[in-house]
Amino acid sequence: MINLCLFGAGFIGSVHAGNLTKHIGVNFKYIIDPRPEIAAKFAAKTGAKAVDTATALADPEIHGVLIASATPTHADLIIAAAKAGKAVFCEKPIDLDLKRTDECLVAVKKASVIFQIGFNRRFDPSFRALKRRLDAGEIGKVEQVIITSRDPEPETEEQLAAGGGVFREMTIHDFDMARNLLGEEPSELFATGSSLVSPAYAKLGDYDTAMFILRTPSGRQCHINNSVRAVYGYDQRIEVHGSLGMLRAANRTPTSVEVSNAVSIATDKPLYFFIERYAEAYAEELVHFVDCIKNGTKPDVGADDGRKAMILCEAAIASAKSGKFEAIRF
Amino acid sequence: MINLCLFGAGFIGSVHAGNLTKHIGVNFKYIIDPRPEIAAKFAAKTGAKAVDTATALADPEIHGVLIASATPTHADLIIAAAKAGKAVFCEKPIDLDLKRTDECLVAVKKASVIFQIGFNRRFDPSFRALKRRLDAGEIGKVEQVIITSRDPEPETEEQLAAGGGVFREMTIHDFDMARNLLGEEPSELFATGSSLVSPAYAKLGDYDTAMFILRTPSGRQCHINNSVRAVYGYDQRIEVHGSLGMLRAANRTPTSVEVSNAVSIATDKPLYFFIERYAEAYAEELVHFVDCIKNGTKPDVGADDGRKAMILCEAAIASAKSGKFEAIRF
Amino acid sequence: MINLCLFGAGFIGSVHAGNLTKHIGVNFKYIIDPRPEIAAKFAAKTGAKAVDTATALADPEIHGVLIASATPTHADLIIAAAKAGKAVFCEKPIDLDLKRTDECLVAVKKASVIFQIGFNRRFDPSFRALKRRLDAGEIGKVEQVIITSRDPEPETEEQLAAGGGVFREMTIHDFDMARNLLGEEPSELFATGSSLVSPAYAKLGDYDTAMFILRTPSGRQCHINNSVRAVYGYDQRIEVHGSLGMLRAANRTPTSVEVSNAVSIATDKPLYFFIERYAEAYAEELVHFVDCIKNGTKPDVGADDGRKAMILCEAAIASAKSGKFEAIRF
Amino acid sequence: MINLCLFGAGFIGSVHAGNLTKHIGVNFKYIIDPRPEIAAKFAAKTGAKAVDTATALADPEIHGVLIASATPTHADLIIAAAKAGKAVFCEKPIDLDLKRTDECLVAVKKASVIFQIGFNRRFDPSFRALKRRLDAGEIGKVEQVIITSRDPEPETEEQLAAGGGVFREMTIHDFDMARNLLGEEPSELFATGSSLVSPAYAKLGDYDTAMFILRTPSGRQCHINNSVRAVYGYDQRIEVHGSLGMLRAANRTPTSVEVSNAVSIATDKPLYFFIERYAEAYAEELVHFVDCIKNGTKPDVGADDGRKAMILCEAAIASAKSGKFEAIRF
Repeated sequence: MINLCLFGAGFIGSVHAGNLTKHIGVNFKYIIDPRPEIAAKFAAKTGAKAVDTATALADPEIHGVLIASATPTHADLIIAAAKAGKAVFCEKPIDLDLKRTDECLVAVKKASVIFQIGFNRRFDPSFRALKRRLDAGEIGKVEQVIITSRDPEPETEEQLAAGGGVFREMTIHDFDMARNLLGEEPSELFATGSSLVSPAYAKLGDYDTAMFILRTPSGRQCHINNSVRAVYGYDQRIEVHGSLGMLRAANRTPTSVEVSNAVSIATDKPLYFFIERYAEAYAEELVHFVDCIKNGTKPDVGADDGRKAMILCEAAIASAKSGKFEAIRF
Repeated sequence: MINLCLFGAGFIGSVHAGNLTKHIGVNFKYIIDPRPEIAAKFAAKTGAKAVDTATALADPEIHGVLIASATPTHADLIIAAAKAGKAVFCEKPIDLDLKRTDECLVAVKKASVIFQIGFNRRFDPSFRALKRRLDAGEIGKVEQVIITSRDPEPETEEQLAAGGGVFREMTIHDFDMARNLLGEEPSELFATGSSLVSPAYAKLGDYDTAMFILRTPSGRQCHINNSVRAVYGYDQRIEVHGSLGMLRAANRTPTSVEVSNAVSIATDKPLYFFIERYAEAYAEELVHFVDCIKNGTKPDVGADDGRKAMILCEAAIASAKSGKFEAIRF
Repeated sequence: MINLCLFGAGFIGSVHAGNLTKHIGVNFKYIIDPRPEIAAKFAAKTGAKAVDTATALADPEIHGVLIASATPTHADLIIAAAKAGKAVFCEKPIDLDLKRTDECLVAVKKASVIFQIGFNRRFDPSFRALKRRLDAGEIGKVEQVIITSRDPEPETEEQLAAGGGVFREMTIHDFDMARNLLGEEPSELFATGSSLVSPAYAKLGDYDTAMFILRTPSGRQCHINNSVRAVYGYDQRIEVHGSLGMLRAANRTPTSVEVSNAVSIATDKPLYFFIERYAEAYAEELVHFVDCIKNGTKPDVGADDGRKAMILCEAAIASAKSGKFEAIRF
Repeated sequence: MINLCLFGAGFIGSVHAGNLTKHIGVNFKYIIDPRPEIAAKFAAKTGAKAVDTATALADPEIHGVLIASATPTHADLIIAAAKAGKAVFCEKPIDLDLKRTDECLVAVKKASVIFQIGFNRRFDPSFRALKRRLDAGEIGKVEQVIITSRDPEPETEEQLAAGGGVFREMTIHDFDMARNLLGEEPSELFATGSSLVSPAYAKLGDYDTAMFILRTPSGRQCHINNSVRAVYGYDQRIEVHGSLGMLRAANRTPTSVEVSNAVSIATDKPLYFFIERYAEAYAEELVHFVDCIKNGTKPDVGADDGRKAMILCEAAIASAKSGKFEAIRF
């Protein structure tokens, strides 16, 4: 039995808690949240015990920690958990500041603890199958990757301000996916952003509609398109072109029902948003984390992946301003 | 918290056990199986306690029983559980004998207990959505129903002998679905069966490939096609034609990945068999059963549905021999 | 250059005329129609000369005739054309009477002329590809065939009365397709019909909604479903199940455009009716006819196919009344 | 009857000739080609008369000319035909030189003749339906356009050298489509190209794999991806995202046949290349040209569209070198 504690009794914390309680090999021991009432309620509902950080990290029974608290708390918790010798699962980003991110990486390395970053999409069954088949050579050598990533609704101004901007909040997942699929680190990035949907973005000097091109040293290319308005639901598609063909992962729908009537042939819209679409991915990333703890293996997606995605975000911010291909320096 | 016990530590019992343990509002208290070693193992794995039938039924804390034991034991367990005032969930069929089936119905009625039959397909999200939209009038009045129901592999001779024949084992689900969708009880049934796949069926005077037409008094029609050989996986599709259009439920696939290469554009095969395809349906039918216990409501699919499906099986057996439309007398 | 004449300046005659004028190797020489004004207009539009039957058949330059006139005129024209040594393309049916049909077959045989019956669906590119792949063994041995054949609108009472009933008018194409795909002649047929759509059918003792099961001596099965109401357009699908898989031909749509909006993901309805769906088939069947004339080869679909389809129609009429599997005697 | 003459008896000339002969309202009078033998053969096959340029343009019966000859001859022929008062249909590009292009535009304007440029994709039934529905407001205001345009095979070195490079040869169609769909002229363009497929491209300093981002003054964005290697066939897809949804046009396949077997569910590859995919578009653009002549109306796609697409090509060439967003100056 693997004993885990969870930092953060918020929305994403609840998703993880749901998966922890269903995982047969896991004892979800502690919940830590600075708001005592919320922590107590969360504890009552999940069976975990509400404690403070020190207690959780001091417990020698605890094998690992899940960090799903506010972004500014991530770095401190990572460093403390690493020092305590606990395996760490942390929601992205590690930190909005790259220097602070690097300090976390040093701490994790020094403590030789397992570290997994919450790039959940890597664990989506369809994306995972696509990646596996790509690695198996099914379409030969990668030439172009096209990532469609569109949210069904914009964020509020508060959410936006807290997240460090739409590239660091939203595109970061796509940058990670681009790296995952290109088979070679990108060396140049071009970005352009517009404000066509919600004034909240423009108000913060941010974009709600954006396009990107990444390029690797050997000339492989990746396009990403983003929007915070997909009225038909969460649009999450991947297309990889190789020398022997194309692999695509389409959207998933709640049912397979189709109606034919005097107007058209109509099917379901895609699953609404990340909670629905990536339900299996959230469960699977924890299964992977637990497996890594059990077997002492390195997670498929680690601290370095978190750091590199952040560097791509910074290049994107620069390029959207400069109108130029920005060089990537990892 | 609803306390439940499960009869039968076999294959389908394991499926139910898996769902019981994940259901937050359920305490899976007892497992009952005549094979002590198997019961003990099952108990160890699930946390339920292995007891005998009398103990389970005598426990006043037990709200309901799940009967997933061998078919010949169903009737006795139903009657005993009903007498003990327990809610009953029973795998189909109630009994292979119609008279014995009727005795169960009497016992259930007399005891006024909740009874749910395991027609799991009624709880498949796609079929359920299709039914809801049909009932909402989306395609007007039903005129024709087409049910495709094909297994990926034949049964062994032992399984076949125990099941009462392919119509009672396999088509029974399709007959229930036909009744569910036609909006009117069928009054005539035509069946024809062949032996094209596995000699085991012919040996028992049974069929491995069959087609059916059902007809209601107002002239609505339903076609069912069955085979025990669908090399591409479990083929479970429904098509309902109404005065205003058609509703279809297609197969479900493990992923949404598609490969385009020099040969073709290829997608996943359907989910392999009933365990995969109806995973959600198995979970949902238990959620429904528990809800009915909690709220004292009647299950959507009850003893009478089990009985009527058996009557359709018998008409099918008669028609396959007579080559005639057989009248249905419920 | 192949010289052809056309009998019948009606609707289907116009379709053939359109294809004749586009065929580079064909000289569309004569149009024959008992209504002089209509014949003259048709001639003006197409460049063919309006003449009478005797003139056309007496012209030694004429290689073949296309018979697209009213059904009762078919037999006389076939016999006359055969005697004149012309290749014959005739719209289905040869004749509504089986005895008269046989007289035509005798005349054709005696004269050793090429005869092609207008079962246009055999020349639909999708159905043709399906058949070719079936014959190539791609799905092994045929076990079941499922034919969906639904018209977007009912016929008028006048059309119905002239056509000899819905089975002889509509299902006849499906019966031909069943024979084409089963790989073995059917030996038994079951039919049931209802009146759910248009009172015109019931008035004539006919059906507007029907289902069929055909069976071959070795136990292969075929289901056909018919309706004269498919509000979403002409529904023409085929599904063949074999020992190694399934081949399906889906509907065709006017465009590949799909709209995703707040309601659903919607594509085009199928092409509206036979003129649109089978446009290529109408052209291809004439190409085939001309090729057969040029090369002196036997058409893929001949007089015997016309005759056998009629026998299946008669068995269907009998079965819909008797409620029994009717034996087929070709 | 509209009398037309055709310049160029090459490959694309044959395509046009095939459509001219099928068009009922057209008299395909002259074929002009500098190679006498080829012109004679072409004349024999099509029924057109082989003449020289002067004869054709001097014939007062000629309403219009189709220019499908080698690119360097376009400008002279346009100017001569315009002076002769003939309607002009010209294959793209007008000329590889922008100044020469402008001279053509002046000549056409001065002579007030109809001018249509051969951007055939505008007449593809699916793209046309998409455009019509977009203009009808079905998805609100355009925000992003994504154009996938991939050839099944690279060009030979000779073809490449003659065409003025891959952007002017291939991407030019996509640039026109971008302008057609964005609803606003693009003002900035970013391009990046690689050599991953065929050394012939690199040898000429050209690219065989490329990605583009266009941007309009209001912030609308368009992505184009190109490759000369799509082993699964010609990949021609469009996706338009608007404030109320998404419109997509998918690839078209030769048949609707699908096979389900032990490996996968597989459908046809897309139609092989432009001749197959745009067969209807080639016919429709001529129908449109003839209609414009008949009605004295302006073609939907004219000289200015040809010129603007060339300006986008030049910006793309510059951007691929500079690594910067290049400003568009029409």
